[in-house]
Amino acid sequence: MGKQELRLDELWRKGYRILQDPDAFCFGVDAVLLADFAAAGKTERVLDLGTGNGILPLLLDARDKGGEITGLELQEEAAGLAAENFALNGTQERLKVCHGDLKNAAAFFGRASFDVVVTNPPYHELGRGMVNPENAKSLARHEISCTLEDVLQTAAAVLKLHGRFYMVHRPKRLTEILAGMERVGIAPRTLRFVHSHAGDQASLLLVSGMRGGGKELRVAPPLILYGEDGKYTPEVYEIYYGKNET
Amino acid sequence: MGKQELRLDELWRKGYRILQDPDAFCFGVDAVLLADFAAAGKTERVLDLGTGNGILPLLLDARDKGGEITGLELQEEAAGLAAENFALNGTQERLKVCHGDLKNAAAFFGRASFDVVVTNPPYHELGRGMVNPENAKSLARHEISCTLEDVLQTAAAVLKLHGRFYMVHRPKRLTEILAGMERVGIAPRTLRFVHSHAGDQASLLLVSGMRGGGKELRVAPPLILYGEDGKYTPEVYEIYYGKNET
Repeated sequence: MGKQELRLDELWRKGYRILQDPDAFCFGVDAVLLADFAAAGKTERVLDLGTGNGILPLLLDARDKGGEITGLELQEEAAGLAAENFALNGTQERLKVCHGDLKNAAAFFGRASFDVVVTNPPYHELGRGMVNPENAKSLARHEISCTLEDVLQTAAAVLKLHGRFYMVHRPKRLTEILAGMERVGIAPRTLRFVHSHAGDQASLLLVSGMRGGGKELRVAPPLILYGEDGKYTPEVYEIYYGKNET
Repeated sequence: MGKQELRLDELWRKGYRILQDPDAFCFGVDAVLLADFAAAGKTERVLDLGTGNGILPLLLDARDKGGEITGLELQEEAAGLAAENFALNGTQERLKVCHGDLKNAAAFFGRASFDVVVTNPPYHELGRGMVNPENAKSLARHEISCTLEDVLQTAAAVLKLHGRFYMVHRPKRLTEILAGMERVGIAPRTLRFVHSHAGDQASLLLVSGMRGGGKELRVAPPLILYGEDGKYTPEVYEIYYGKNET
């Protein structure tokens, strides 16, 4: 992968920037909303399952969330790019990248070793349409290398008791998500649905859970991306650019 | 129960009115939203599980939904009031009431005998706070006489293949609701969350499902009850009073 194919994009916080490969995967609104939704204290150990080019650790760090944040990535080129991105922003002391399969995460990192797990996993089940398993974009979008169940089992294995889990996913998978979280012992805590416009069905969901937590679930206010004027709503504008620049 | 204790309320459609016992249970926004959310053709057989004073059959009929609609009610006084209400509005040809336990519904009505099941069941699990099991309001609100699982099993038993299920419930029960629907063979189809104001967490949910249907779930646009002016939003106004009177 030559550098000439990469693109340098702004993260709109602390001057952070990210090198992205447009042929592989570029971050979208999903990562930004998840970084906003997730809570992590300055001394907490955070694991990002399937970090890609390292966008979530960077977005979290730019928001002063998390202490040491580790991004785990199966694709070697993406993992290399994540390491490059962490160095590019001078964050290599706090942000780490690990090249490997999340199914081995508990063995590699140790069980109950993280306070927080975040993940923006592949959204689509296999078996619907043609998918090229060699393609980097396909691996990020389709459950080729890991399923939702793999992600949840890994999260449950590496989370400390009462550790928190944050995920962005698609509403069509909601039933599996909630049932799967219950099954692995991560009690769903908060659900937030994301709608492009106030009158549209939800296109994304944000979900949080706690390992070994209680079962009272709350559904947060809807998150609407665009107002009637076609621009970001004030809330989304603030999520992207911060309070001061509104 | 003396007549002097009853109250006569408007249903705001077709001049329908309803006798309600303020000491037992009076209908709320839940029933109105569910009647709007549910779809039922003019020749379809509809069953309302736990009809109370018959509010849902009346609200559906006033919206020209459903052919013959049967309300099943465990509490004898409420069932009697439902029959009175159906007669009061001249709807006794289409709207029927049956006094009995929903756990016997499949034996009584026959399996796979309804096109549509609607229900506004008790929301609260037992074991949280003091509940008087002799009290009519408690029976309507707490899972004393039937659990969510009973409601779902009954619905699955009496619904025809591809028959539809519509329920209003509380968001805190979402995980159980979706898992329970899957378990009894009613695939969740549409979820809609109800928020008092756009910035509030959801206070109610509407869910539809299909017996033996596919598993693609959609989350509909949020339903917001009150605008910034403190009045019903235009959508809720129309749900209550219809299009012509807006």
